[in-house]
Amino acid sequence: MQDLTPFSHDIVIHNGIVITVNPDFDIIENGFIGILDGKIQQVGTIDGNKPPPAKTMIDANGGIILPGLVNTHTHLPMSLFRGLADDLPLTEWLNEYIFPAEQKHINPDSVKLGSLLGCAEMILSGTTTCCDGYFYEDAVAQAVLESGMRAVLGQGVIDFPAPGVPKPADNVNNAIRFVEKWKGISSRISVSIFCHSPYTCSKETLVKSKAASNHSNLLFQIHVAETQNELKQIQSEHHTTPVQFLEKMGILDQKTLLVHAIWVNDRDISAIKKQGSTISVNTQSHMKLASGIAPVQQFLAAGIPVGLGTDGCASNNDSDLFGEMDSTAKLHKVNTLDPTAMNAPSVLKLATLNGARAIGLGENIGSIEIGKQADIIIVDTHKPHLVPMHHPVSHIVYAASGGDVRDVMVDGKILVKDYQLLTLNLADVMEEVAFLSQSIKTA
Amino acid sequence: MQDLTPFSHDIVIHNGIVITVNPDFDIIENGFIGILDGKIQQVGTIDGNKPPPAKTMIDANGGIILPGLVNTHTHLPMSLFRGLADDLPLTEWLNEYIFPAEQKHINPDSVKLGSLLGCAEMILSGTTTCCDGYFYEDAVAQAVLESGMRAVLGQGVIDFPAPGVPKPADNVNNAIRFVEKWKGISSRISVSIFCHSPYTCSKETLVKSKAASNHSNLLFQIHVAETQNELKQIQSEHHTTPVQFLEKMGILDQKTLLVHAIWVNDRDISAIKKQGSTISVNTQSHMKLASGIAPVQQFLAAGIPVGLGTDGCASNNDSDLFGEMDSTAKLHKVNTLDPTAMNAPSVLKLATLNGARAIGLGENIGSIEIGKQADIIIVDTHKPHLVPMHHPVSHIVYAASGGDVRDVMVDGKILVKDYQLLTLNLADVMEEVAFLSQSIKTA
Repeated sequence: MQDLTPFSHDIVIHNGIVITVNPDFDIIENGFIGILDGKIQQVGTIDGNKPPPAKTMIDANGGIILPGLVNTHTHLPMSLFRGLADDLPLTEWLNEYIFPAEQKHINPDSVKLGSLLGCAEMILSGTTTCCDGYFYEDAVAQAVLESGMRAVLGQGVIDFPAPGVPKPADNVNNAIRFVEKWKGISSRISVSIFCHSPYTCSKETLVKSKAASNHSNLLFQIHVAETQNELKQIQSEHHTTPVQFLEKMGILDQKTLLVHAIWVNDRDISAIKKQGSTISVNTQSHMKLASGIAPVQQFLAAGIPVGLGTDGCASNNDSDLFGEMDSTAKLHKVNTLDPTAMNAPSVLKLATLNGARAIGLGENIGSIEIGKQADIIIVDTHKPHLVPMHHPVSHIVYAASGGDVRDVMVDGKILVKDYQLLTLNLADVMEEVAFLSQSIKTA
Repeated sequence: MQDLTPFSHDIVIHNGIVITVNPDFDIIENGFIGILDGKIQQVGTIDGNKPPPAKTMIDANGGIILPGLVNTHTHLPMSLFRGLADDLPLTEWLNEYIFPAEQKHINPDSVKLGSLLGCAEMILSGTTTCCDGYFYEDAVAQAVLESGMRAVLGQGVIDFPAPGVPKPADNVNNAIRFVEKWKGISSRISVSIFCHSPYTCSKETLVKSKAASNHSNLLFQIHVAETQNELKQIQSEHHTTPVQFLEKMGILDQKTLLVHAIWVNDRDISAIKKQGSTISVNTQSHMKLASGIAPVQQFLAAGIPVGLGTDGCASNNDSDLFGEMDSTAKLHKVNTLDPTAMNAPSVLKLATLNGARAIGLGENIGSIEIGKQADIIIVDTHKPHLVPMHHPVSHIVYAASGGDVRDVMVDGKILVKDYQLLTLNLADVMEEVAFLSQSIKTA
C-alpha cells in the first residue's frame, strides 16, 4: 500500500509551536511534524513555505504541539472512588472508606468500567501513556486496549486477601499469569509486576515477584517510603530505611520504579542512583494525603530518572498532569523559598521524556523526535487564560489545564479530535459509572 | 412593569445540586433558585414537583450550582504580562522584567485592554467578584463595567514614579480623584484605596491614604508581610514587624484588607484580630514566587475573615480560583502533615462567603441566601473528571477547574451562557492583546 501513496506522510501537523523536548529542548515557532506508519518521520519549520502534503492535514491553529504526557503512576479503576472520602486521617480513609469500597465493589466488570473512565479522563487531558497497577489488571488491559492509549500495566501483589486474589499465596503466580497472557498482545501495552510495598509484602513475596519480573525483563513497580509511619515501621522491624531494605534484597535495579520515595535520606538517594532505579513522584497525592514532600531536586541532581504521576483518583482527585506539573513547580519553590527551583522546562521534562524513561519507554516516546512513536497532543491557545503567549513552556506548566487539550494521537492514531474522544462512547461510560456509584455511595 | 408579569421570578435555576454556603452550609440535592430584580428571592428543593415558572428557566442539567467565586486580590491589567518571565529571583523578575514592562507598556489603553482580558478570564472561570488594585484604575473600572462583573477597585498609591502618576507627591490625591469619580457610578463597583506596601510608601503616605480611605468609609488594601526580606527591612528600619508597624500608625481596622500576610507572628495575628482587619491569601502566587506559606489555619482559628486571591497573572499565571482552592487545601495539608487540615468545605468558604466578608461585601454576596444579589455559577458535571459525584463540595475543590463553569450570572444578569461570554467580544480582545504582546515580547 505504502508504495502507491503519493504522499510521503500519513499525517502532517502544522501551524503551531512545537515543543520538541529533544536533547536541545528545541522550540519551533512555526513548525510541522510529518508522521508515517505511526512514527514521527520529519520535524521542521514551515519558513514561509507550505507544509508538506499528507492524507490527513491537522491545522494546530497557532496552538502548542507537544509530546503526549506520561503519567508514571495510576490506579485506573479507582476513578470509581473519586471524592468518596477526603480530608481524613490516612488510616481512617483507607480502613473505613477505600478498603471496604474495594472489597464490596471491585470485580472484573467494575474494574473495566472504572478503567474506561480513567482512560477517557487521561486521554482528554493530554496523557497518552500511563503506568498502572491494580487488581483484575486483565480488565484494565482490556480498557486500555479499547481506549487507544499506551500503558505499562502491572497486576498487584500484596500479602493480604485482595480483589480477585483471595489467597495471598497465589499473588505472585497470579501476576505471572497476567504477564503471560498480555505479553506481546499489543505494542501499546507493556506488562509489568506491581508489588504493593515493603510493609504489605513479605521478604519472600518481594524477592519472588522481583525474580519473576526480571525473568521476563519487565518493569517492577513498588510503592516505597510514602509515609513517615512506613519509615518508622521498616526501621523498627528491619533496622534500615525502606529503600535500603529493598536494596539489601536486590530489588533495586534498572528495571525498578520506586513510587513516592518521600521519606528518603542521602544514602537512600545514593543507593537508588547506584542501582539505576527510577522514581515516580505524585505531588498532588503527596499533598492531599499529607504524606510529605519528595526531594525531587536531589533526585534530579543525582541524575535519577524521575517522572510525575497522579496516583489514583481517590487521592488527588483527578488525573490531570497539567495540574501535577503546576503543583510540582510551585511546591518545590515555596518549600525551598527559591523561585528558581524546578523551572518550567524541567517540570515539562518530568511529565514527558523523563517520565517515559522512568517507566522504560524513553527510547520510544516522550519527545517529538524522528523515529519515535507519534504520541502527540495539541493545546488550544485561543483561550483568555492562554493569551498573550510570551513563552509556550510557561503556558503549559503554569496556565494551561487538561481542558485546553484539543487533539490527541497515539501511534499516529487520532484519539481526540476537536475535544471529542473518538475511541470510546464517553456518555455511556459516564452513565454506567454514575449508576454504579449510587450503590457505592449508599454502601 | 413588575406588577404585570405573571411570574413571581425573573429567572429560575433548577435541576442541579445547590451548594448554598449559608450558615448551615446546606447542600440541596435537587434544588432551585428563584431570582427577582437581580436578587435571590427563593431557594428550595424541587421534591418531585415542577420548579416554579419564570420568564427565564435555566436547567442546570444535574450540575452544581454555587455562589460566584470571590477573588480578593488581583491586578487585572497584569494579564498582559502573563508568563513574561518565570522562575527568577524576585528582584531580577521585578527589576528586569515587570517594572520595565510596566514603564514601557502601561497606559490607559493597555490597562483597559488587559483588564477586559482579565475580566473575561475570571468570569469564564466562575469568578463574579474581584478586589483589584493597580494604576490607571479608571480604565480598569471601565473594563469591569463593560464586562458585567462586580469589583472593589483601588487606585494604586506608591512613593515611586508610577504609570500615570509620575510625581509621587500626587499619589494620594490621585487615588482620591479616582474615588470621587467612581463612587456611586454602579452598584457593581465599590471604590477603594490601594496602598502598595509598608516598604514602598512612607509613613506619611500610609497615614494620609488611610485617612482618605476612612473619610469615605472605603476598603483600604495593602500588601504586607509578603517576603522575608520585607520583614527584615521593616524590622531593621522600624524595630517591629510589618503588621505591628501598620498597627502603630492606626492603619489596622475593620476596613483594612491585608494582602499576603505570610511573615506574621502570633502577636501580629492577635493585632489583626483585635483591630478587625481582614486577609487575602494568594496561595499559588506565594508558591510560585517562593514567598512563603501564610498561616491560614491560625487566621481562621483566630476568627479573622480570610479570602483567596490569585494575585496578578505575572505571578501565578492564571486567575482560576478553582486551582487556588485546590492548592490551598493541599499545601496546608502537606505543610502540616495533617490530611484533615483545610477541608473542602472550609476552602470553598474562603473562595466565596469569607472572601466576600474580607472585602466588605459579606452582606450582599458570597452565598446563596434569600435577599442576596444573584451572583451564581453553574458547574457542568458531565465530564469524565467529575464522574462519579460522591460529594459535590469535594468536586468543586479537588476535581473541577475554571473550564468546567457552564453559566455565570451577576445581579441576575447572565454573563456566560453555555460556556459563551455574552458581555464582551472575546475574540477581539484576545487578538488585540496578542498584537500588543508582540511589542512587549521584543522589548
